[in-house]
Amino acid sequence: MEQIITSLLDNDWYKYPMGQLIWRHFRDAEVTFSLTNRTKSVRLAEIINEEELRYELDCVRNLRYSGDQIDFLRSQRSSKGQILCDEYLRYMHREFYLPPYDLKIVDGQFDLTSTGPWQNVSHWEIYALPIINELYYRTLERKQSTIERCASYAFGIEQLKEKNRILGEHPEVSVSDFGTRRRYSRERHELVVRVLAEERPRSQFIGTSNVELAMKLGLPVIGTSAHELPMVIGALYRSTEAPFVSQNRVLKYWWNEYGHDLSIALTDTLRTPYFLKHLPYEVARDWKGFRQDSGDPIAFGEMIIAFYESLRIDPREKLIVFSDGLDIDAIVRIANYFRRRIRTTFGWGTNLTNDWGFPTLSLVMKAVSVRKKGKLIWTAKLSDNLAKAIGDPEIITLYKKDCGYGETFSQECRY
Amino acid sequence: MEQIITSLLDNDWYKYPMGQLIWRHFRDAEVTFSLTNRTKSVRLAEIINEEELRYELDCVRNLRYSGDQIDFLRSQRSSKGQILCDEYLRYMHREFYLPPYDLKIVDGQFDLTSTGPWQNVSHWEIYALPIINELYYRTLERKQSTIERCASYAFGIEQLKEKNRILGEHPEVSVSDFGTRRRYSRERHELVVRVLAEERPRSQFIGTSNVELAMKLGLPVIGTSAHELPMVIGALYRSTEAPFVSQNRVLKYWWNEYGHDLSIALTDTLRTPYFLKHLPYEVARDWKGFRQDSGDPIAFGEMIIAFYESLRIDPREKLIVFSDGLDIDAIVRIANYFRRRIRTTFGWGTNLTNDWGFPTLSLVMKAVSVRKKGKLIWTAKLSDNLAKAIGDPEIITLYKKDCGYGETFSQECRY
Repeated sequence: MEQIITSLLDNDWYKYPMGQLIWRHFRDAEVTFSLTNRTKSVRLAEIINEEELRYELDCVRNLRYSGDQIDFLRSQRSSKGQILCDEYLRYMHREFYLPPYDLKIVDGQFDLTSTGPWQNVSHWEIYALPIINELYYRTLERKQSTIERCASYAFGIEQLKEKNRILGEHPEVSVSDFGTRRRYSRERHELVVRVLAEERPRSQFIGTSNVELAMKLGLPVIGTSAHELPMVIGALYRSTEAPFVSQNRVLKYWWNEYGHDLSIALTDTLRTPYFLKHLPYEVARDWKGFRQDSGDPIAFGEMIIAFYESLRIDPREKLIVFSDGLDIDAIVRIANYFRRRIRTTFGWGTNLTNDWGFPTLSLVMKAVSVRKKGKLIWTAKLSDNLAKAIGDPEIITLYKKDCGYGETFSQECRY
Repeated sequence: MEQIITSLLDNDWYKYPMGQLIWRHFRDAEVTFSLTNRTKSVRLAEIINEEELRYELDCVRNLRYSGDQIDFLRSQRSSKGQILCDEYLRYMHREFYLPPYDLKIVDGQFDLTSTGPWQNVSHWEIYALPIINELYYRTLERKQSTIERCASYAFGIEQLKEKNRILGEHPEVSVSDFGTRRRYSRERHELVVRVLAEERPRSQFIGTSNVELAMKLGLPVIGTSAHELPMVIGALYRSTEAPFVSQNRVLKYWWNEYGHDLSIALTDTLRTPYFLKHLPYEVARDWKGFRQDSGDPIAFGEMIIAFYESLRIDPREKLIVFSDGLDIDAIVRIANYFRRRIRTTFGWGTNLTNDWGFPTLSLVMKAVSVRKKGKLIWTAKLSDNLAKAIGDPEIITLYKKDCGYGETFSQECRY
């Protein structure tokens, strides 16, 4: 068996700035992450060998950060200076560990959870998902003949050539690799990123969210932040403050820690209209922009532009990072649609790193609960696409009531 | 540097039955093999690093046969029994070595020669040619971008799929892999053979000339004999007998050693008309058929059919092995042309194993001289295609006079 994750840096960059924030403010929060396979039709536990999965997960638990790896993290700077402070880096080097996991099979699916200090357990998401994906495709490959295996590789190369060609025709479009979690395999992830890094100018392929690849290929690391921050912090404060207060608390922590350079806000945890309704003016004014991760991207952009205009802020100086289920056609279409109205860039995930002729899985691993004074509190996310809403149904109902849930958008997740 | 030849069995099968015949009858013949790059426009020594070439050649000199490998050779049987006798196998296991080589650079080309006992030095041909080819393509690959490298692989896979598809539409056509010498790389050679072995029935893909791959993939070994036998034996007897006498001497040795199962004769050393004119009736009657390795394949087949008919032998019970510069279109065309008139099969070389979008080299390594009682005698080959004629010009002239050289066919070698 070949080890899939061989470096702890084979991780999404945003886990580190998020981790530092968590480590600073919520060091004692004990959080549970849990795997969900939204592609119910694929009974993963009947395809992937459980022992192989355990082996791969155990391999990651045995990894440690090397001094060089910590130095690479230390070298990441914003205009405020070093992004990750020496104390946090010392913690990562000396104390970080992945909490034990619990793996069961329920109804043909893997029930994979892990509970531990939030700043640690959070990293399981980015190690577990590519492991499961790669084991899944290895199994499918084993059923193929040699020519089928080669042909699917050749197909993927043709797709990549075509993406590269289209990007070449649209130099105004900029993209980055957000494809670690859903990649076909580590090897092909590297191949895709290497090709875009070689073929596209840095102004167009602006970098990768994968820290290991950024270090190996000399690329900028790219990333924003994830739902786990508002989800867990919202849960921790649910009994004492309104959801929007917790949400703005997250933005405040983030701004204080990282300032302007990393100021991209994720809007859809409790739905974008609720988020914007309660957003402090200073955030709208000072932050670079927003990340769109669910719902209709055009409607989202229009809403954001109208929002800025209502506050007499010029949207042309603001940025939307689109990151939801993109393919090259959507990227070009969205970029052209908003051209000269608001700046856009694209965090390209599944379709970039997992386009080899196989169906893709919509796998997620999310923070589902947090323990506070011995009491378990469930997290929840509404999302701008109902199909992506997660959390205890009661909590979802509660949030819906609090946050308003008028028109509903629901669309099957492609990835 | 990755070692290209890692097994002495990574060799063409026919070197072993030829080697046994040589070992039995010409054990003391000291022969020189010499490399020729017919693709003069490619100045190989300016492309391939000489030290890398020496390293690869030295690697082969350090290899020895394992007991398993000798057992695999021993397992090859014809209806006469074990093809290679235990004494010869013991020789190969215990005494075989590759003679030292001499490598110089002359006018941008490698002047590679080796002199030693014929049954040993002969094997250099099959080790040196794939080494030079693979080093050549490695150099070309280094100049490519990642996407170019992947795209040429994808191109080759598409070619292979197409070949496989066409073979599927022509189940009457049978082919074998003769592509060791001119392959793009060892890895891709194995890939191509593996694909044909998986996709085509054994009646259509009848085997490979590569002993290592046959052993690894459980395929029949395929092979006839090469020009070196009539060339060297012709040189050794030149002063005492006419060329056709030596030529028939070779056939006699071969028949006595291997009988019917391996009875495919190579006709073009001194041109096919001369060969047929002097061929004993028993050979025409008893041997399975002939191998076509130069000239026009259709004209050759017509000549062979007319020859059999003139002797009242039914050509439909005879076989032609075509092996000269084949591609899938030529294979299908030739097979259909001769359908129901004479049996055909195809030894598919360069175009099978070196079809990845790069130009191919026409590299050969031939027996150029033999020492007899201290005197150096040059070999010569006329071939049915003047562009393939090799040997000392004086000898060629002499042979031409002796053997008749009426209509001349000359065509640039594609491979």
